[in-house]
Parts: sequence; structure tokens; C-alpha cells
Amino acid sequence: MNLILLPADCADTVTLTDRALVQHLGGVLRAAVGQTLKVGKLGGRIGQARIAALTADAVTLTDIACLTAPPPKLNLTVVLALPRPKVLRRLVLDMTAMGVQTLYLVNSYRSEKSYWQSPLVCQIDDYVREGMQQACDTVPMAVHLRTRLKPFVEDELPALLAGKQGLIAHPYAAATLHEQLPTAEPMILAIGAEGGWIDYEVALFAAQGFMPVSLGTRILRTENAVSVLCGQFLLHSHLSAAGLMAQNHR
Amino acid sequence: MNLILLPADCADTVTLTDRALVQHLGGVLRAAVGQTLKVGKLGGRIGQARIAALTADAVTLTDIACLTAPPPKLNLTVVLALPRPKVLRRLVLDMTAMGVQTLYLVNSYRSEKSYWQSPLVCQIDDYVREGMQQACDTVPMAVHLRTRLKPFVEDELPALLAGKQGLIAHPYAAATLHEQLPTAEPMILAIGAEGGWIDYEVALFAAQGFMPVSLGTRILRTENAVSVLCGQFLLHSHLSAAGLMAQNHR
Repeated sequence: MNLILLPADCADTVTLTDRALVQHLGGVLRAAVGQTLKVGKLGGRIGQARIAALTADAVTLTDIACLTAPPPKLNLTVVLALPRPKVLRRLVLDMTAMGVQTLYLVNSYRSEKSYWQSPLVCQIDDYVREGMQQACDTVPMAVHLRTRLKPFVEDELPALLAGKQGLIAHPYAAATLHEQLPTAEPMILAIGAEGGWIDYEVALFAAQGFMPVSLGTRILRTENAVSVLCGQFLLHSHLSAAGLMAQNHR
Repeated sequence: MNLILLPADCADTVTLTDRALVQHLGGVLRAAVGQTLKVGKLGGRIGQARIAALTADAVTLTDIACLTAPPPKLNLTVVLALPRPKVLRRLVLDMTAMGVQTLYLVNSYRSEKSYWQSPLVCQIDDYVREGMQQACDTVPMAVHLRTRLKPFVEDELPALLAGKQGLIAHPYAAATLHEQLPTAEPMILAIGAEGGWIDYEVALFAAQGFMPVSLGTRILRTENAVSVLCGQFLLHSHLSAAGLMAQNHR
């Protein structure tokens, strides 16, 4: 926890009773009254606050001063086939931390029905919050659940795709993501769960203009692939903004 | 498991009794006699083999034909502070899968002593194997354990660093990795465990010529940071090889 999220509307002083937070402050960080902590207002600015009181059940922060804007997000929407619930937590946490703007969790042939019924799926807001507190962000990643893939791809995705490049990760695609990245457009990236998309699903996305891409011959775990892809997107944004890409790139 | 590793010296037919493998073939993949599977010889080439027999305890593969070279590795050595054992498995698996050439697992102030005594630390070879079978590679990532940081950094690292660029990931560094990547040299990247390196450790590496770099203002979990960094290194290698970097880059 590198930043403590405060309510959007808090004034100069606030008392928080979140159990995990209070335990983290007292136990892991061994924080003490008078100490200054990094804080951010939900959806707003980042700054500092001072511990006015710390008990086993609550922490009171005062002198709250938030002046810095939160970090920019990646111009990236991810469409992810619902993975195993245990993997879901880390994926949502990490995608939030890396600055993915919007996540659509969709059904797929290889997402088992039981995944949707897991109590962990109801805790997605908590994972987003963990990701924000990890990465010092205050703006939540937007998360949408879509339990039916075909209506989502055919009816909802075309409007989302306007002005964006659509790529679908598929280990056996001929083109690699590296070859596609040199265009600097905003992107929608569709990523399968363990075992990837089936051919029918790849065809559904392709019919909407999504290009299948691989990461080369190496096949990565979903979690790992998502981080690699976001890292590449981040570097590419930086290189483009800094004028470090050659003029003749596509 | 996207590739089955075979012994380096196997001929046309081999019988494997690895329990996890046999269960995976029968249970998860529902493989049957006559079916063709992707295989690779340890340290050697990749190809196909046919299932000649499959029981609850063993699988016999025949018509083994391996002609394709394994995928190239990243020109990257990682020095990683020993993380929690549970996280270690995923990290070693994913680094192997992404093609990291060499890994040094080192002690650090924030690596608890108990981590070194965990039985999981003895299973690193298994994690490397899992990573190779995930990513369709046959060449193991080299892994070295160094339980004393200072002698490693001062006595061993200088020779390893010759001809390479040394970077140490530090969330509060002024420079970002994106700014350093446009040099195309081989790289040694030092990454801390949870909580990162302490200042004394950053200074140890810096004295040997390592430059502290961050990933920007976002602080990522170790696992996530490693994947992001490898993804960026991979993209940069591709862009350089394809002549897509501007001429005036440093």
C-alpha cells in the first residue's frame, strides 16, 4: 500500500476504520502518531496527511493537503475472458496499477460457468482499490461484466472500437504485436483466459475488424501476457511522445 | 503445457513417467493414442511426436522429429531480491517463459531469512521446466543463488557487467526505464522484492555503475514490474532490429 485512498469529499481531517488499512499501518508499516503518509482523494488529487490518532480499530488523518494530479492512464481498453477467480484478483489489481482505462470481463468457451458464481467476482471493486493503492492512482479502472460474448462483440463492441485499433491476442496468429504497435492509436486488446480463445471466438472479433496478433513463438500465461502487453504499450507511448520513433514507421 | 520436454539424448521413441505430465495428457488434454504432440529436446530442437501408448502411469511417444530451433532469448540478465516463496514460483516460471537468459536470486534487507529455508526454493528447476513447457522453449534459464549481497555486488557483478548496461529498479529514482531503453546494449536489471531495495543497497549497485530507474510514478508489484520490464525490453529489441527507432536516439 503505497498510497491511502481517502473519500472524495473529505475535508481537512478524516477517520478511517477500514480493517486491512488500520492493520497495515500499525502492523506492517509500524506507523505512529505525527507521521506523514501519502494519500489521495478518490477520483481526485494526491498529497499528504498526518496521523492524528491510531488505535487498533481506526486511524485519524489530519492536515490533508492534496495538490498533485493522479498519473495519466494508458489509452487502452482490455477485453478479458473471465479467468479463474484466484487469477482474477491479481489481474484486476495489476491492470489497475498499470493504468488500463477500462476492462470488459467477458464470457468465453474456456471460462468455466462456475467462475461467474465465485464470490471473488463480487470483490472486483476491492481489487481495483488495491491496484490504486499499489500504484498511487486515485481514478478507478472502469470494469464491466458481460456474461454473453456474442451480443457483446456484435452489438456493443463496434461503437467502442470507433477511432481505435482492435487487436486480439492469439498465440497462433501470424502477425506479432510488436509489428502492430508502431501505430499510435488508442487500442482495444482482447485477451483469452487459460487456453486462449477458440477459433469461433477469434472469428467473431475478426469480423468486427480486430487483428489477431501473437507475442511471437513464446506462449505466456494470461497474467504475464497482460503485463508484457501493457509494458509494450507504455514504452511505445513514451517513444512516440518523445519523438524517438523513426519517421517511416507505419 | 504447450510443449513436452524430452530428454536431450532421446532417440525415436521414449517413455515418460512424470506424474504431472501423464495426468495433464490424460485428464486436461484428453489425449489419445495416435495423437500428435508438440515436443522439444532439452537444450535442443523443437518438433512433434506421436502417442504410441498412454496409461495412468506412463506415456510412450514415438516418431520423434525435432527440426526447429528454440526461440531466441532476451539479451537480459536479472538480479532479483529473493521474494516470498509463493511469488518465486510464478516469477521464475514467467521469466523463463519470457526468455530471460540468466537469473541471480540474491539476498536483500527486505528478503526474510525464512525465504531461503523454504522447500520451494529447492524446486526452482521445476519452475524453470514449467516455464519452458509454457513458452515452447527447450533451453533452461540459468539460475544462481547468492545468499550474501555485498560480496556478490562488489566481487562478482563487475565482471558480469562488462559490455552491458546496468539498471536498478527503484520506484523513487528520477530517471525512468523508458528513457534508458533506447540504448540497445545487453542489460543487467536489478529488481527488489516487495518494498524494493533500501538506500544502502541502491548505493551498492550504483557504485558499480548501475543507474537507478523507475517505471514512472506508478509503483508496481515485483511480478508485474518484471513482466512490464521484459515486455519493454522485447519491444525495444524488435523496434531496433526493424529499424523503427529514430536515428537521433541516444
